[in-house]
Amino acid sequence: MRKLYAIGIGAGDPEHLTVQAIDRLNRVDVFFVLDKGSAKADLVRLRQDILSRFVTRPGYRVVTATDPDRDRAPSDYRAAVADWHELRTDVYERLIRDSLGPDDTGAFLVWGDPSLYDSTIALIEAVLARGNVAFDYEVVPGVSSISALVARHRTTMNQIGRAVQLTTGRRLATGWPADADDVFVLLDAHTTFNQFTDQGLHIYWGAYVGTPDEILLSGPLDAALAARISAVRAEAREKHGWIMDTYLLRRPQR
Amino acid sequence: MRKLYAIGIGAGDPEHLTVQAIDRLNRVDVFFVLDKGSAKADLVRLRQDILSRFVTRPGYRVVTATDPDRDRAPSDYRAAVADWHELRTDVYERLIRDSLGPDDTGAFLVWGDPSLYDSTIALIEAVLARGNVAFDYEVVPGVSSISALVARHRTTMNQIGRAVQLTTGRRLATGWPADADDVFVLLDAHTTFNQFTDQGLHIYWGAYVGTPDEILLSGPLDAALAARISAVRAEAREKHGWIMDTYLLRRPQR
Repeated sequence: MRKLYAIGIGAGDPEHLTVQAIDRLNRVDVFFVLDKGSAKADLVRLRQDILSRFVTRPGYRVVTATDPDRDRAPSDYRAAVADWHELRTDVYERLIRDSLGPDDTGAFLVWGDPSLYDSTIALIEAVLARGNVAFDYEVVPGVSSISALVARHRTTMNQIGRAVQLTTGRRLATGWPADADDVFVLLDAHTTFNQFTDQGLHIYWGAYVGTPDEILLSGPLDAALAARISAVRAEAREKHGWIMDTYLLRRPQR
Repeated sequence: MRKLYAIGIGAGDPEHLTVQAIDRLNRVDVFFVLDKGSAKADLVRLRQDILSRFVTRPGYRVVTATDPDRDRAPSDYRAAVADWHELRTDVYERLIRDSLGPDDTGAFLVWGDPSLYDSTIALIEAVLARGNVAFDYEVVPGVSSISALVARHRTTMNQIGRAVQLTTGRRLATGWPADADDVFVLLDAHTTFNQFTDQGLHIYWGAYVGTPDEILLSGPLDAALAARISAVRAEAREKHGWIMDTYLLRRPQR
């Protein structure tokens, strides 16, 4: 039977790879690399560096495909996401059906942890649900982007006995989440932290965490720091052509 | 100068160790093992297994100490936690001051990820803040217990575009957190999920995740499943003398 792995490869530092991930990498016949366009070429190269460094088994293949991009300014957000999900399911189904022999093992390498704001598991489940191609699959957990962020800032996710929220920039823009004192914001292209200055919050921000291009900024979130992070972010995005950043907003408890 | 590492060693499976963690393990002169009593002897042994398997550098020392337990039923929860924190800071300070030579490197091995509901980073910061002993320290992120849980259940932490809450059993007992559709519950000795049966939730529960004793249960959270998890949990706790379990409560979105 065909076998698939969704392998978490950590948040940018190749040394985040786990022993389990390296073991699974060395059982793979076909690595699927989904390219989102030239802006993300650095990320494709980082994945290839990981293969060169950790895969000792010869003879594996790398199959690339273009991951369809979504409408970035849809009139109906939920419908646009659903349409995009179908298009991507088509791509994943075709890759698994056409590139894997009946006893082959394939793998998707996922930045950070495959369970956190990543669609690979949902797409694999969607392909299985269609029933056109049969396979078994395993998820290999990885060091998440949020674990990597707070480790580099040498702080914790939670304050003692308090709750943590993981959310998106889009949701944060609607207001501070209730019932949480620490809020991790992912997928935020709009520097939404600018809405929360001078409210007694502390920000821990990081971009390209774990890579040689890492940038870390933190401190009490006043207008000056928000402006500084926004400027640094814009400059880095311009320079690299892409950015992966995350931040934690903390409401300190006494 | 003295150097300290807080190293995330993953959620129970020794194969969760990262390349970075193994690299740091092999720079360590003194490993600090804090024993919380005989009930946790399995956990101390698991740590020793990790050292035997991954540390090739000879001559390291293992220094054990008793981690003071806290009052489990205090009249003033916050004061009890603060007192306990001071007692633990004393223990950590003594370990660092008395067991590390001026150029030695020490390490605390932390289950899962050191940033998530673990006090090692806070205790290291508290020792630094007292100013009685100087050292540099680094946090090495690990695969968290929640990443390991959802990987074994082959599901995600978040639903598309939705928020996730990480919280404690104590907090969940006060009600479902606002603004979140997926809730991870840690440190829950009281099977608080029993309060949330027959509300359209789905539970993903796991104990000893990643170890040979792993138990996974999941499904729509009705009274029968809640009772079954409670019974399985009690039986496993009785058998092993301790339990490490976590769960995700999901409110499915359409």
